[in-house]
Amino acid sequence: MLGRVNHIAIAVPDLAAATTTYRDTLGARVSQAQALPEHGVTVVFVELPNTKVELLEPLGADSPIAAFLEKNPSGGMHHICYEVEDIIAARDRLKAGGARVLGDGNPKTGAHGKPVLFLHPKDFDGTLVELEQV
Amino acid sequence: MLGRVNHIAIAVPDLAAATTTYRDTLGARVSQAQALPEHGVTVVFVELPNTKVELLEPLGADSPIAAFLEKNPSGGMHHICYEVEDIIAARDRLKAGGARVLGDGNPKTGAHGKPVLFLHPKDFDGTLVELEQV
Repeated sequence: MLGRVNHIAIAVPDLAAATTTYRDTLGARVSQAQALPEHGVTVVFVELPNTKVELLEPLGADSPIAAFLEKNPSGGMHHICYEVEDIIAARDRLKAGGARVLGDGNPKTGAHGKPVLFLHPKDFDGTLVELEQV
Repeated sequence: MLGRVNHIAIAVPDLAAATTTYRDTLGARVSQAQALPEHGVTVVFVELPNTKVELLEPLGADSPIAAFLEKNPSGGMHHICYEVEDIIAARDRLKAGGARVLGDGNPKTGAHGKPVLFLHPKDFDGTLVELEQV
C-alpha cells in the first residue's frame, strides 16, 4: 500500500534561517518560500535526489504546527508523507486495521493540491503519518 | 553536498509490534530484525520505492536511543540520514559554517558499514542529522 516517501516535514521557528542552513551550510537546493494561508503554513522545499524535505513555518493564528512549535521551540521533525495510489482504499484498510484517521475521516486537499489524510501518531509509534494520493 | 535521503529513523518501544504495523496495517515490505549490539539497537528496515524507514529498538544497557524513548515513550522520528560523497569534506564544510559535529568529530562506522557522522540537532532546527558516505 505505501508508496514513495513524498516528503519529510520539519517544523521550524524561523523559515528564513532554516532555508539558509539547508542551502548554504548543507548545500542543498531549496525552493522559494510559498505562503499557504489555507494550510496555515509557509513552506520551503529542500529538493533531494530521491525525495524532498518540507520546511514549515506557522502562518496565521490557527496554524496546525503552532502547538508543535510551542512544545518544540527549536523545531523538529513533524511528519512523514507517503504516497498511495487510492486514498479511499487506503483509509478503509487502515480503519479496518484499527488505525485512527484524523479529522472527519475524509481526505482534504493538501499543500500539493492532492487528496491527503493524516493518521493518529499514537497508532504509528509517535509518528504523524500523512498519506497523499498521487 | 546533500545527496539522497538514505533513511528516516523512527525509534520504537516495541519493534515486533511496529514491524507488524508497517507490514500489515500500512502494507509495506519489511526486513527481518537485525541486532546490532555495537550500535545499541535492533533494526528493521521498511523498504519504500525511493528510500527506507529504519525502525530502531534499544538493545543493551547503553543504547543511544534509550534517552529519546524515555522522553518519548510512544516512540517518534529520531533522525534523518543523508548521503554524501565525501564525509571529510562535508564535515570540514559544516564546521567552517559553524555547525557542531557530535562526538570527537571523526566519522564512525555506521549501521550499514559506511562512515557516518551525526550533527547537533540544535544547529538544524531540532532535527538530528546523520551523514553517511556512500
